[in-house]
Amino acid sequence: MLPGVFFLTLLIAVADLSAQAIPDPNGAFSTTPTAVSVPNYTVPAPGPANDAEWNKPEALAKNLQAVARQTSSNYYSINFIWVLGAAFLVMFMQAGFALIETGLCRAKNAAHSMSLNFLIYAIGITGFFICGFAFMCGGVNGTSIGGPASLGGLPTLDQMVTVGDGWGILGKTGFFLSGSAYDARVAVWFLFMMVFMDTTATIPTGACAERLSFKSFFLFSLFIGMFTFPVFACWVWGGGWLAQLGPKLAMAHGAVDFAGAGVVHLQGGVIALVLTSMLGPRIGKYDSKGNPQPIIGHDVPMVLLGTLILAFGWFGMNCGNALGASDGRIAIIAVNTALSSGAATLTACLLVWCFLGKPDPSLTSNGMLAGLVAISGPCAFVSPASAFLIGIVAGILVITGIFVIEKAGIDDAVGAVSVHGINGLWGLIALGLLADGTYGAGWNGCHLFRLTDGSLGYFNDVAKAPAGAIEMGITGLFYGNGKQLVVELILAAVAIIWNAAMAAIIFGIVGKATRSNRVSPEVEIAGLDIPEMGAPGYPDFINAVAPEQVQPSEYQ
Amino acid sequence: MLPGVFFLTLLIAVADLSAQAIPDPNGAFSTTPTAVSVPNYTVPAPGPANDAEWNKPEALAKNLQAVARQTSSNYYSINFIWVLGAAFLVMFMQAGFALIETGLCRAKNAAHSMSLNFLIYAIGITGFFICGFAFMCGGVNGTSIGGPASLGGLPTLDQMVTVGDGWGILGKTGFFLSGSAYDARVAVWFLFMMVFMDTTATIPTGACAERLSFKSFFLFSLFIGMFTFPVFACWVWGGGWLAQLGPKLAMAHGAVDFAGAGVVHLQGGVIALVLTSMLGPRIGKYDSKGNPQPIIGHDVPMVLLGTLILAFGWFGMNCGNALGASDGRIAIIAVNTALSSGAATLTACLLVWCFLGKPDPSLTSNGMLAGLVAISGPCAFVSPASAFLIGIVAGILVITGIFVIEKAGIDDAVGAVSVHGINGLWGLIALGLLADGTYGAGWNGCHLFRLTDGSLGYFNDVAKAPAGAIEMGITGLFYGNGKQLVVELILAAVAIIWNAAMAAIIFGIVGKATRSNRVSPEVEIAGLDIPEMGAPGYPDFINAVAPEQVQPSEYQ
Amino acid sequence: MLPGVFFLTLLIAVADLSAQAIPDPNGAFSTTPTAVSVPNYTVPAPGPANDAEWNKPEALAKNLQAVARQTSSNYYSINFIWVLGAAFLVMFMQAGFALIETGLCRAKNAAHSMSLNFLIYAIGITGFFICGFAFMCGGVNGTSIGGPASLGGLPTLDQMVTVGDGWGILGKTGFFLSGSAYDARVAVWFLFMMVFMDTTATIPTGACAERLSFKSFFLFSLFIGMFTFPVFACWVWGGGWLAQLGPKLAMAHGAVDFAGAGVVHLQGGVIALVLTSMLGPRIGKYDSKGNPQPIIGHDVPMVLLGTLILAFGWFGMNCGNALGASDGRIAIIAVNTALSSGAATLTACLLVWCFLGKPDPSLTSNGMLAGLVAISGPCAFVSPASAFLIGIVAGILVITGIFVIEKAGIDDAVGAVSVHGINGLWGLIALGLLADGTYGAGWNGCHLFRLTDGSLGYFNDVAKAPAGAIEMGITGLFYGNGKQLVVELILAAVAIIWNAAMAAIIFGIVGKATRSNRVSPEVEIAGLDIPEMGAPGYPDFINAVAPEQVQPSEYQ
Repeated sequence: MLPGVFFLTLLIAVADLSAQAIPDPNGAFSTTPTAVSVPNYTVPAPGPANDAEWNKPEALAKNLQAVARQTSSNYYSINFIWVLGAAFLVMFMQAGFALIETGLCRAKNAAHSMSLNFLIYAIGITGFFICGFAFMCGGVNGTSIGGPASLGGLPTLDQMVTVGDGWGILGKTGFFLSGSAYDARVAVWFLFMMVFMDTTATIPTGACAERLSFKSFFLFSLFIGMFTFPVFACWVWGGGWLAQLGPKLAMAHGAVDFAGAGVVHLQGGVIALVLTSMLGPRIGKYDSKGNPQPIIGHDVPMVLLGTLILAFGWFGMNCGNALGASDGRIAIIAVNTALSSGAATLTACLLVWCFLGKPDPSLTSNGMLAGLVAISGPCAFVSPASAFLIGIVAGILVITGIFVIEKAGIDDAVGAVSVHGINGLWGLIALGLLADGTYGAGWNGCHLFRLTDGSLGYFNDVAKAPAGAIEMGITGLFYGNGKQLVVELILAAVAIIWNAAMAAIIFGIVGKATRSNRVSPEVEIAGLDIPEMGAPGYPDFINAVAPEQVQPSEYQ
Repeated sequence: MLPGVFFLTLLIAVADLSAQAIPDPNGAFSTTPTAVSVPNYTVPAPGPANDAEWNKPEALAKNLQAVARQTSSNYYSINFIWVLGAAFLVMFMQAGFALIETGLCRAKNAAHSMSLNFLIYAIGITGFFICGFAFMCGGVNGTSIGGPASLGGLPTLDQMVTVGDGWGILGKTGFFLSGSAYDARVAVWFLFMMVFMDTTATIPTGACAERLSFKSFFLFSLFIGMFTFPVFACWVWGGGWLAQLGPKLAMAHGAVDFAGAGVVHLQGGVIALVLTSMLGPRIGKYDSKGNPQPIIGHDVPMVLLGTLILAFGWFGMNCGNALGASDGRIAIIAVNTALSSGAATLTACLLVWCFLGKPDPSLTSNGMLAGLVAISGPCAFVSPASAFLIGIVAGILVITGIFVIEKAGIDDAVGAVSVHGINGLWGLIALGLLADGTYGAGWNGCHLFRLTDGSLGYFNDVAKAPAGAIEMGITGLFYGNGKQLVVELILAAVAIIWNAAMAAIIFGIVGKATRSNRVSPEVEIAGLDIPEMGAPGYPDFINAVAPEQVQPSEYQ
Repeated sequence: MLPGVFFLTLLIAVADLSAQAIPDPNGAFSTTPTAVSVPNYTVPAPGPANDAEWNKPEALAKNLQAVARQTSSNYYSINFIWVLGAAFLVMFMQAGFALIETGLCRAKNAAHSMSLNFLIYAIGITGFFICGFAFMCGGVNGTSIGGPASLGGLPTLDQMVTVGDGWGILGKTGFFLSGSAYDARVAVWFLFMMVFMDTTATIPTGACAERLSFKSFFLFSLFIGMFTFPVFACWVWGGGWLAQLGPKLAMAHGAVDFAGAGVVHLQGGVIALVLTSMLGPRIGKYDSKGNPQPIIGHDVPMVLLGTLILAFGWFGMNCGNALGASDGRIAIIAVNTALSSGAATLTACLLVWCFLGKPDPSLTSNGMLAGLVAISGPCAFVSPASAFLIGIVAGILVITGIFVIEKAGIDDAVGAVSVHGINGLWGLIALGLLADGTYGAGWNGCHLFRLTDGSLGYFNDVAKAPAGAIEMGITGLFYGNGKQLVVELILAAVAIIWNAAMAAIIFGIVGKATRSNRVSPEVEIAGLDIPEMGAPGYPDFINAVAPEQVQPSEYQ
């Protein structure tokens, strides 16, 4: 059969010869320009045949309006494509988190860990749909901050709960995406913010792995999606008071967090820290003298596959936050994301190799994640060299952090606190230090100028800026502006306080409601899969009875 | 080395200082607008320097033509990007199907199940290339329906086999993508429809897993790609008679199926039902009294990873069917897709948890898929709240369906009939019920108007619509128009009859040709991997000799 | 709870009724055309309300300039979206390579194999950032070739080391992406080329699997990313001497390699061949008589999942090389990529089935990869039928190649030499044979014309082309132009010589520096995971003590 098919297709290829041997026959772009068509009016197709049509003076303004309308529509299409595509990538990060956390568990908890990371997506969607989105985004046009211009400004999201002199606390429109929130532009933002919320909510599941009860997880996660994430995110991204610090109190550009070092990672890391502290360490994690013992993950390829999926999805996370592709800066963001991740991976690998003797894959994987987390804050505002630098520091911080936290008696099963918490904080600080002023002019409605004498000054009433002053973007301490760093530290402090308090309160209540947030010791020792989920992860394989007997220490 | 690299990059970042400390230097967008260039004419670069050039009266029409041409080209580029990107995502769904189906098999059949899902992609491509595409799409401009305007209308696909008064049955141009089908716009549609065909063809492999012979699979799948899918898809999406019911018989907007609830899922589910019935249940599935016994999958993480990959790819499946991003509705589609999947996942999880005692991961995964299948039909036509509702119903239907089908003695190894068949049907009905009229005006060349008295009426000759009437999109029963529901039921009936008949006939013939569609009992008990594929799935691991002894029931 | 949520959402859907029952309310595209805004000037919003504004004669040119500027910006956005999105897909191919190579190893080497493929990404980024990019791309405007117009020409990359009469050897600007290379357009190209470099660097790790020492891998890979890949890539894609063969010596269009059959795959394959030869075969690969013994991979689903991920990412690899979506040819490229992969998969499957008795999954997977590699060279220049043909040949070549290479005593653990080396070469030859002249006019600044008598001729001074001559794209032997094939063979020869020499020298030096490129026999027999990486791949599972005893021959 094969030779027959071969010759048949050869025949077809050659038969196409005469027809195809002209240049570029497939035409959608060059040979058959299509008329620009808009409601009630069609521009004549460009080309010599219609020259007379085009040259009529009375047609000019009409044609131009139609072309302008299509150009505007194209502009929005471009931004829609970018943000939706980015949202899809971020959604896929759920798979990455699931694989990393599951791979770092023991096989007896694989179905449980995987299910938590799977279900968080559905729980988060539901909570965000009901009220989370309304709380977070419903008031973006209720203060002076305003919605993203790249998505048409989202004028219908205009109801904010405010306190005092108009400080935004909580949005209050967009529940169930109903009413005026049933709008294509709003939908783009909903989807993108929803996947960010899901990412935040999935971070603590890793830290609490191998002992958190399914019921508690279910209830607690619903609160993150409905309430704790949306409220804090409103303050930074939804036109709330942290963003307003700039325009209202002239505190630099106000709180700036490009892609979630604070809003996603520091939040998630703090919640992870609180939850894992409240749960206590896994049985066997510390010996009788309180020295940490390695509990090694059951599947290294799964961990590294998950990490690569996250690195893939992170391009969506960081680049998508430009909320459009109409801005060329997306390319710098993408490159910075890759560079920081690469630098952090290598740094962590070399550190671990030097100090532990072997380049442990799981710790190296944490290095990559740390680099990605740290750059999430400043990715749009720094140069590639700075991004590389940020990655190196992230690699050092994450490894140090993991050992310090472990020593402190906190059993974070996957290193989430160090990866997301510590490096989320580092990302905010790095923004305050290394933002070079090349991007972000007008952020939160604030305006920084470099005066002719080289000094910097904020003139939010642009008319008052002196002649010859050049407007700058977000600028950090190393580039002459220490104010932004101060605001970043305020942002970080608020993130820590809000999330620590909320997590402690809600997890406490949930623990009461479910009797215990932690499974029983019997269940923990047997593995959570069958007692909690009703299904073993790998029923066809014989697990090692006592994995400790295999004795390959993670840190040997 | 590390400190050295650290200081070197710090140095570079600071050395960049003076050069970078101006706003937005990277310019492709703001500082260096490039001339709009078209064949034989270049518009002067916008900017004060060329004002004189632009102000010449004789240049205006010429410049405007050039700008219009580039605007038109941008419009097509935007649509190409969207549909091609969506096609890539749908292609990746092959990996999701492969993982789910394989994870739900026993380890002894892993290589076989994975190979089937892998090879279907290649078999489908080949069959669709040879004649499938020509049958499905080759006549889209051979009737009054016409090709997608967002892709330039595809004027070269204009040959339809018709019966009676021009009812389209089968396209007849585009074989081997040769001749006039060698065209960039046609290629976009080819790729997108090809991956839909592959998705359809891969559905039955799951239902028949663990007993279908490789040879039978190979032959049968080739027929789906070459014939059964293309013919039915032609009737709905290729300008065929089901689409023509609208314009020719004034039956609402004709058959409408936005992203394949009928064309992909109901088709695949019906074929799965026929094949698994013809094959009979797996050995051990029913005890001597005919009671179903659980046969649990060997890898839960694999199942959930596959499900997340499908949910990721589904954004391409649903949003891509707008056949362009020039339409903002893509955002509503994406949000509806996520909401339905989330609602169905939670519903299935809670149902299973309540009734079986544990939130079984595999059944929860089926919940998510059910939500995705159901929303595929109406995703563009309903509000987010309706999408959430559709998901809740899907979650109930899929769990109920799985148990009813199992009780009925049909051994569907992965729940494909319930997920794709029942929920594909529900998707079509949901469209007929909940479409709210906000989208789809002019679909299939049909025009529905809301008259000034609030009543609805079809006036396909638009000139006959009364003054003040507002054109509506696809509208369902709950919004005052029962006619669309009737056509959806016709569509569903035809899908069921065509596929049931074709599957039975072809699978019967294939079974004769290969002696048996089913492997021998010895092979089935030993596992299909080595006898059928020549390779075990996991040669390095000791499988449990009798997985039944592990005794974790899927439904305990 | 469920019924409550059901009725609540039903209520909301129905409550939306009156508000929603108008067509298309979500407006970003049709109802609220936004003004086209550019720095210092805003075009009035199109629409009857502003007709007076538009009709002012003095406004016309000003409005048109603003629209032109936005149209130009949209054009670049479109290209940025496409190339960045493609780069993300290619980056994700790292996961595919990692899974394939690891799945084809034995379980005892899983963590090692996975880690190599994981770390190569970070190593490559670092090397490419430091100097690789500068060497490869820094001189693209230093010769007559010039940077990609779709990305604005990249005017700042203009420093080339040349020899003789301006022959480009090595770029010399863009180190650390600093100075004038800190530019959004440059960043797009950097990211895309970086992932190509990483793909090239990851190919040899598979061939050398299960015995290459981690230290040697680390050092050697750094050299690929910093030096050997960039230099050769500069010659073909960076404006170097192989591209200059066209404009300077009138050798057809100069070296043409659309998406890396030579630059990525032939390079990677040659390096793989040299390294695996220098390392020698794995212990147990050949019996005492020198007959090859099967060493079967430990995880077939992992191999096939990896292959599907590669096939997914390959759409980015091939389509992205158009360096923009402003050209409709991207659709033909995507279709050709799918067709070649499908044809090669089926061909390899049938061949293996016929000659070995069973359709071995791993070899079938190699078939798909071979088809993808081969089409990488000519994907933009050939018809779909030719692409299918190229795939058939690739399927035959890869299977034959694997057995010939194995017989020759070269132990290539994953078939990388056959997949990437042999089929990379075939891709270049196929381009020289089957390019049909429909695409690529003006490539490398060269111009081929079909004269009125049907003959072909190069007239790089376009003004000298005779009247009536039609410009052609890249054209191969079967379409009347043998010259291109000659240049492709030169390209292939240079790729082989450069990489064979460099790989031998550098791997030799690395071997000296690390004492041995190969782990000790004890480590190899025990598995590399714990000795090299400090972590076993699957600590919780009991591996089969002697996998040979399972006795499922890969080729039985």
